[in-house]
Amino acid sequence: MVDSVTPILEEYSAYTDGQMKAVLNGRKNVGRLYDMMKYHLGWLDEGFNDCRAPRGKSLRSTICLLACEAIAGDRNKALPAAAAVELLHNFSLIHDDIEDGDEKRRHRDTLWKLWGVPQAINTGDAMDIVANLSLLDLDGSVKPEMMIEIMRLFNETVIELCEGQYLDMDFQCRSDVSVDEYITMVSGKTAALIEAAAAIGAMVATEDEDVIGRFKTFGRKIGISFQIRDDILGIWGDPKSTGKSAKNDIRNKKKSLPVLYAMEKSKRRAELKRIYVKEKLSDLDVARVFDILTEAGALEYTQNEAQRYKDEAMAQFEGLRLHKAPMERLQAIGRFLVERDY
Amino acid sequence: MVDSVTPILEEYSAYTDGQMKAVLNGRKNVGRLYDMMKYHLGWLDEGFNDCRAPRGKSLRSTICLLACEAIAGDRNKALPAAAAVELLHNFSLIHDDIEDGDEKRRHRDTLWKLWGVPQAINTGDAMDIVANLSLLDLDGSVKPEMMIEIMRLFNETVIELCEGQYLDMDFQCRSDVSVDEYITMVSGKTAALIEAAAAIGAMVATEDEDVIGRFKTFGRKIGISFQIRDDILGIWGDPKSTGKSAKNDIRNKKKSLPVLYAMEKSKRRAELKRIYVKEKLSDLDVARVFDILTEAGALEYTQNEAQRYKDEAMAQFEGLRLHKAPMERLQAIGRFLVERDY
Repeated sequence: MVDSVTPILEEYSAYTDGQMKAVLNGRKNVGRLYDMMKYHLGWLDEGFNDCRAPRGKSLRSTICLLACEAIAGDRNKALPAAAAVELLHNFSLIHDDIEDGDEKRRHRDTLWKLWGVPQAINTGDAMDIVANLSLLDLDGSVKPEMMIEIMRLFNETVIELCEGQYLDMDFQCRSDVSVDEYITMVSGKTAALIEAAAAIGAMVATEDEDVIGRFKTFGRKIGISFQIRDDILGIWGDPKSTGKSAKNDIRNKKKSLPVLYAMEKSKRRAELKRIYVKEKLSDLDVARVFDILTEAGALEYTQNEAQRYKDEAMAQFEGLRLHKAPMERLQAIGRFLVERDY
Repeated sequence: MVDSVTPILEEYSAYTDGQMKAVLNGRKNVGRLYDMMKYHLGWLDEGFNDCRAPRGKSLRSTICLLACEAIAGDRNKALPAAAAVELLHNFSLIHDDIEDGDEKRRHRDTLWKLWGVPQAINTGDAMDIVANLSLLDLDGSVKPEMMIEIMRLFNETVIELCEGQYLDMDFQCRSDVSVDEYITMVSGKTAALIEAAAAIGAMVATEDEDVIGRFKTFGRKIGISFQIRDDILGIWGDPKSTGKSAKNDIRNKKKSLPVLYAMEKSKRRAELKRIYVKEKLSDLDVARVFDILTEAGALEYTQNEAQRYKDEAMAQFEGLRLHKAPMERLQAIGRFLVERDY
């Protein structure tokens, strides 16, 4: 299953990369400012020489392109938006890495680790703007009124992302986070941008508000599903596939969905909460949390939720006349999101 | 002289503040995210109770409003842009304070000092977007094509700001910064946003490209002049007026214009450079640098430069038919910028 998705993501990702490179290379050099962005994107090594380091799955930009293609039969018009979405996602990763103190991303040193927090903050700020400027490249291929609507949606998305990030950091200091609050948080932090990717892909292709609305809802729900699967991999994932250590999220006391579920439903929830207030968890603590989650059926619950959101996402397309090949690709990506092991 | 400008700045600042408050209060509360912005803006104290703490001069938003008023005879249409410019300026201050490690701003603890670097980065990010959203409130009162032009200019401005900030941080690690490089740096870091303020104020009022171009050039040059006067106050300013310690910029080894001038022109430039490579300057070092600058005529040179840029800025308005009262206010502000002692 996964093997049917990898070539799709690779093809669409290469297409978007071409545009992102054009945007970044189109700017006048200012010291190493743009080179640091290219390092983060995996195109340069830390000595600023060309390289090909692993990047993310380019899920957001691929969804943006496929949404446009499914409606219009052609993905080209959405390219500046796909690049914008990917640049924006990477801006948020640069700042998240600082905020979370993460020293590694995809086996490479993070930007702040190499060049310090001040330059990393500033590089992230600049990348956020490059994303906005890339989006403005749509101008001329969509009506001015639609261009403004897209800019508004894009900015509303970024602020929702910041709101989600606020909540995520806030949750780490609180012991009373509910499952509902969790959904609000991931809805902002992860799903908003996937929603924007799908919606803007649609807005470039059509003015039909019903169709645009369906792609929006699709994006939001598929985004939540994506994050829930991430939570599963953070606890039950195979380190060989995920590249992270086993039971990583328990060790980091992450308040992810399986944990919040057990905190609400497990008979041993008092014990679970006592462990979670500790400064640092021992190996024994981690094993006990893992047992509590298993006993409470947290894996089944969480996987069912991922499946449910994915099904609700896919149901959006019922009754719409869409192009077959890109729709099949979107469906393959949907399945991948809830079944992936990386 | 200063006394004639204070009431202007106070009046226009109160007008812009009303709009900024409307924009921020229009957002749904997310924990303390928007309250932290309001703290930074001086409206809330650190316990999130109402207060009236001193804020900046609101120079940028006032120039934006006056540009519109000078052309159209009315400032109202520019209000969302004035709020956007002021919000953007404050976003950059929040991030600058982290990047420079400054613990105080206007006698109050900085955001990162109170709530930590991660939340401060994220709050700044969100404020940048609130600025963009405020700008989009112009939609409906300008043509869609002009709205897009304004969004493009605004984003080009922010990226120039980041480029300027990159250079500023880079300069602190280098010993060979030229006066020309300095002008490029402040042109981005300070003047770009003042240029945008004046230009957008004009774009809201007219479609005449010549007039818009003149206000742009005015903003850029007055912005450089503003920064140069800042450099003078950082060395020769009276602590009682500036609120900073005496010879503050020398003590911090800031590579400001008077210092760069002396590094190029002073007979004692070798001695100056030797002092500037030290980790920390003693009181004696500070006194010696001060002597070198005085001997080289750095104060006269720098003040002449501030005056020259200000005169070039003001010359932009020659031959234009503009409304008298707002023009006189703009001229008063121009004079204030090169003569102010705070």
